[in-house]
Amino acid sequence: MSRKILVLGAGKSTSYLIDYFLDKSESENLKITIGDLHPITIPKSIQQHNNCSVITLDIFNDIERQSTIKKSDIVVSMLPARFHIKVAEDCLAFKKHLVTASYVSEDIKKLDKEAKDKNLIFMNEIGLDPGLDHMSAMEVIDRIREKGGKMLLFESFTGGLVAPESDDNLWNYKFTWNPRNVVVAGQGGAAKFIQEGTYKYIPYQKLFRRTEFLDIEGYGKFEAYANRDSLWYREAYGLESVLTLYRGTMRRVGFSKAWNMFVQLGMTDDSYTIENSEGMSYREFVNLFLPYSPTDSVELKLRHYLKIDQDDSVWGKLLELDLFNSNKLLSLKNATPAQGLQQILEASWTLKTNEKDMIVMYHKFGYELGGEKKQLDANMVVIGETKTHTAMAKTVGLPVAIATIQILNKKIITPGVQIPISKEVYEPILKELRTLGINFKEYRVPYLGYNPDSVAS
Amino acid sequence: MSRKILVLGAGKSTSYLIDYFLDKSESENLKITIGDLHPITIPKSIQQHNNCSVITLDIFNDIERQSTIKKSDIVVSMLPARFHIKVAEDCLAFKKHLVTASYVSEDIKKLDKEAKDKNLIFMNEIGLDPGLDHMSAMEVIDRIREKGGKMLLFESFTGGLVAPESDDNLWNYKFTWNPRNVVVAGQGGAAKFIQEGTYKYIPYQKLFRRTEFLDIEGYGKFEAYANRDSLWYREAYGLESVLTLYRGTMRRVGFSKAWNMFVQLGMTDDSYTIENSEGMSYREFVNLFLPYSPTDSVELKLRHYLKIDQDDSVWGKLLELDLFNSNKLLSLKNATPAQGLQQILEASWTLKTNEKDMIVMYHKFGYELGGEKKQLDANMVVIGETKTHTAMAKTVGLPVAIATIQILNKKIITPGVQIPISKEVYEPILKELRTLGINFKEYRVPYLGYNPDSVAS
Repeated sequence: MSRKILVLGAGKSTSYLIDYFLDKSESENLKITIGDLHPITIPKSIQQHNNCSVITLDIFNDIERQSTIKKSDIVVSMLPARFHIKVAEDCLAFKKHLVTASYVSEDIKKLDKEAKDKNLIFMNEIGLDPGLDHMSAMEVIDRIREKGGKMLLFESFTGGLVAPESDDNLWNYKFTWNPRNVVVAGQGGAAKFIQEGTYKYIPYQKLFRRTEFLDIEGYGKFEAYANRDSLWYREAYGLESVLTLYRGTMRRVGFSKAWNMFVQLGMTDDSYTIENSEGMSYREFVNLFLPYSPTDSVELKLRHYLKIDQDDSVWGKLLELDLFNSNKLLSLKNATPAQGLQQILEASWTLKTNEKDMIVMYHKFGYELGGEKKQLDANMVVIGETKTHTAMAKTVGLPVAIATIQILNKKIITPGVQIPISKEVYEPILKELRTLGINFKEYRVPYLGYNPDSVAS
Repeated sequence: MSRKILVLGAGKSTSYLIDYFLDKSESENLKITIGDLHPITIPKSIQQHNNCSVITLDIFNDIERQSTIKKSDIVVSMLPARFHIKVAEDCLAFKKHLVTASYVSEDIKKLDKEAKDKNLIFMNEIGLDPGLDHMSAMEVIDRIREKGGKMLLFESFTGGLVAPESDDNLWNYKFTWNPRNVVVAGQGGAAKFIQEGTYKYIPYQKLFRRTEFLDIEGYGKFEAYANRDSLWYREAYGLESVLTLYRGTMRRVGFSKAWNMFVQLGMTDDSYTIENSEGMSYREFVNLFLPYSPTDSVELKLRHYLKIDQDDSVWGKLLELDLFNSNKLLSLKNATPAQGLQQILEASWTLKTNEKDMIVMYHKFGYELGGEKKQLDANMVVIGETKTHTAMAKTVGLPVAIATIQILNKKIITPGVQIPISKEVYEPILKELRTLGINFKEYRVPYLGYNPDSVAS
């Protein structure tokens, strides 16, 4: 009998996911139903596939949603994270497994006991970040522990960037995912982490000035700024006694210093709306954040305010965005500063049809084994293939797809609300991912502790 | 028959208020009841005064509170602002007037119609700031308008500072009021104002670097940083067509630049708690906000992070606070950064018994009259007398006290929830305040528009 997979939501990140299911549909005996509010955007080749049916589904229509879920064997929710809870409740009611790429919400967490009682697997955080980061990190951490090693340091960095062949602007950055998340990144509280046993806190106003540098063979230099939530990983990964724990977001070198200009100006603020934003020129928009002067130019006021030297390379980055243009206009009503900035950036940073994205991930593992301190670095680079088959869609979608089939095939059997940190889960998935071109390279490096400038301690 | 005034709360700001009532108790035929949770702190001279009775009152005890309010003719609430609503509801029920020095809350505002229907006066914002600022500004604005002038510019600044004779630290600042408000000042959203018809927004991370300068004859130079809420005054003062509207907080010159170090470090953050704050040294506290280094000193890391030159005067300000001391310890459990910083500052900035505070207020009024642009500046300085009879208590308490008696004497008669911006209210109060040494000096100055550097436009 065929196994019935229901995929809810056919957005940006589902191209590889659906292809994978369809490719395996004969060998694995799968019937795929895709439920989406606007299925018209789904390519013909998918719509007409023998083992696929596409239906119009409004997730807020309880009767439709429930009858569809009832008919499936496993549900893959690629909907926005806030919609998962409705789906999860139905999955409990009709005893279906559930797979999502989203962070476990407090609401979902509460379903753990009932899921266990009903022997259901609710697998979450099994995309890229969160997802691939958990699995690839835990694989190395478990290996170190199995040898008798004691973890001292864990640092992990991920970035969604533009591929080198499409990287042609001064920021070395284009939007490859949700632009809004990029504009407001880092807001909402200080970044917290530990370095060599010392707690460290970075406020938003300094976040983009505390970057670290990373090299990836063949891809050159990157930088990373701290994520908010590094301390959370202590418990999740069993790293309670680790001395250094740091998670960050990767950019090309120089991005963060330039981005900090927007932070300092207040242009990333999403908490209030600007008066008369519609029809406002880029130049007027910039001037909102600068002191009034009856005589001085917006350019010189900005240079003075942010202390930008004549020969500082950040200046060219602003000019490239056409930030001082008085003819280009914002078209947004009641825009927040962040929305205004996003519109300006999208005019420059949108990926063209033939351009490709790139996903980079970098882990550092420091440990002690046999009285010696050692370090292993592991990194992964994935380049997108086309505008729809992006590296982001590949690295988010494939882990979800593989997990789904592993659950159907009873290779993953432990029930409950979970994330992919156990060997049972990550081992078969990482193995399959390697055959699909998603793999980490490992490098032995001298253990320096947290000592990026290699100063003797 | 005597008139019965109920004063709720006998905290810091009530010394002058109560003295004023007692001084006037014979001539004005007043009986004062003071209700406080801990009346033991009220001086004997007040407790034993013929026309005063002091009672223990728990504001959350409905029966006690209501029976006490019922017996009075007017209620003065000097309680924390969040407690006013209970009192206001009782005042409606028992038909009593109400006077407070607090901002009108949304809850209080909703009582306007019922207060009007019952011919009750609910006077709010009648302390210093808000209070004296409203009255002194509206007096001048109304005068300009009566002459046919058209308002172009209004700027208003207030500061609670240390008196010159007690001003002996490098910050030229001591806590004269709630230290917590000083530490978290400016957080919670961008400052918004208009300069020469242009909207301007300052984010928290730049707030203390966008100061203006002010001179007060005999008292020297001050600076001011923007308050969050300048735009609100357009409607309240009828300044809808004004070109420049700016409200600020006054400090001695150099304070804000130095304070900005704490902002940039993230030490003013009140949104999360530090791990292991209890017993942490000042030096360790500072190091939480600096990058890890196995070799470099906290001092040099801080200098480098904030780009502080060897000869920058801000450095001495940090040393004066003993910020790098590894023997002085925080004694707070689960402190937020802001709480930790407050404890360090209180060790240096607490007013000693014989030291005095100072209140400064500065208004600028720009207007057009008979085709000419004019400007009038007005400022006020009040120096405290003793540790209890502070300039803050005087400027907060006396307007409240005078308003109360004016209401009893039917000099203020318009009912409803209100703030002191009508002539009926401010005229008799400002007149009485002048006899008590609270008065503004006015200066004609050339109108420069918003052009603080006097650049020709």
